Amino acid sequence: MRAALKCFAARGYFGASMRDIAAEADIGLAGIYHHFSGKQELLQAVMTVTIEDVFASTRASVAAIPDDRPREQLAALVRAWVEFHTVRQEDARVGASEVHCLEGEGRDRVIALRDEQEALFVTTIERGARLGVFTTPYPREAARAILNMGIAVATWYRLDGDITPHGLAERYAQLSLDMVGAIDLRE
Amino acid sequence: MRAALKCFAARGYFGASMRDIAAEADIGLAGIYHHFSGKQELLQAVMTVTIEDVFASTRASVAAIPDDRPREQLAALVRAWVEFHTVRQEDARVGASEVHCLEGEGRDRVIALRDEQEALFVTTIERGARLGVFTTPYPREAARAILNMGIAVATWYRLDGDITPHGLAERYAQLSLDMVGAIDLRE
Repeated sequence: MRAALKCFAARGYFGASMRDIAAEADIGLAGIYHHFSGKQELLQAVMTVTIEDVFASTRASVAAIPDDRPREQLAALVRAWVEFHTVRQEDARVGASEVHCLEGEGRDRVIALRDEQEALFVTTIERGARLGVFTTPYPREAARAILNMGIAVATWYRLDGDITPHGLAERYAQLSLDMVGAIDLRE
Repeated sequence: MRAALKCFAARGYFGASMRDIAAEADIGLAGIYHHFSGKQELLQAVMTVTIEDVFASTRASVAAIPDDRPREQLAALVRAWVEFHTVRQEDARVGASEVHCLEGEGRDRVIALRDEQEALFVTTIERGARLGVFTTPYPREAARAILNMGIAVATWYRLDGDITPHGLAERYAQLSLDMVGAIDLRE
């Protein structure tokens, strides 16, 4: 699966062959087919693991904070989301760019997980809007914008650059709170 | 070039063959090779046109407004950026996902144009920060976030959905002003 991920990231799903993946994994073609029916199953496996991991991490970050603290919930959600996209860049890039290559039930499963992931952003922001803490007139569009500015981090972030994953996550959390018009009730 | 764009969008650069492109264009392979040396030149041509078009449009939108009105400049910039990504979706998706497939001078040219495009967002936002109109402590990160939330529009926006390109552009302009902490000096 690591070899498949690397090949999909480098050449795209249609451009990567089972032969490429076998060579990258340093095993024979028969060895791969012992575990996976083909390239489609490999793509489904790789993408499912990625999205399950990021969903588990982001959901836990929100669940750890009471629902009456939407500022802190959104900040934690954005931090978890951005940190994932700084450290799991290859997975995240394949997850974002190869969805249209998925077929059948594997596709349905990945799409369902993506919908749950988006719903986590939407419900967190709408809860804040209902409580009067987030003042934006556009909570749904804000949810999608925050989701996507985080996904893009996987395309440009460099671990050897001048900001740590944690530092970037903090800045994105602040930008997100500003975008939703968060007011600090302690002020 | 339209046929190449369609094939790159559907199967990725490495997955699309010159034969696919010739079939899509309904001409012979020799017909394509009369105009283009190969698939790489086609990708470079397609991506260069896309980025030149969006850069021309966004630059004009900023240039039409005096530099002492950064709120209006940023709103116009975001509107032009988002509208492009709602109407030129296929071009924009290929532009975003196939950059790593570019080679040689064509690659340098596209990267240089992308850098100019990003600089337009950065300078517009930094000008507003200098003038005290944008209060975010993170103008550079905001520039990149706004750039990328706009790019993502090309991946999910549906022309037959419930919001027009103009309507979406307006909402993104507002979200962007909120993200940079824009204050209205008339208030």
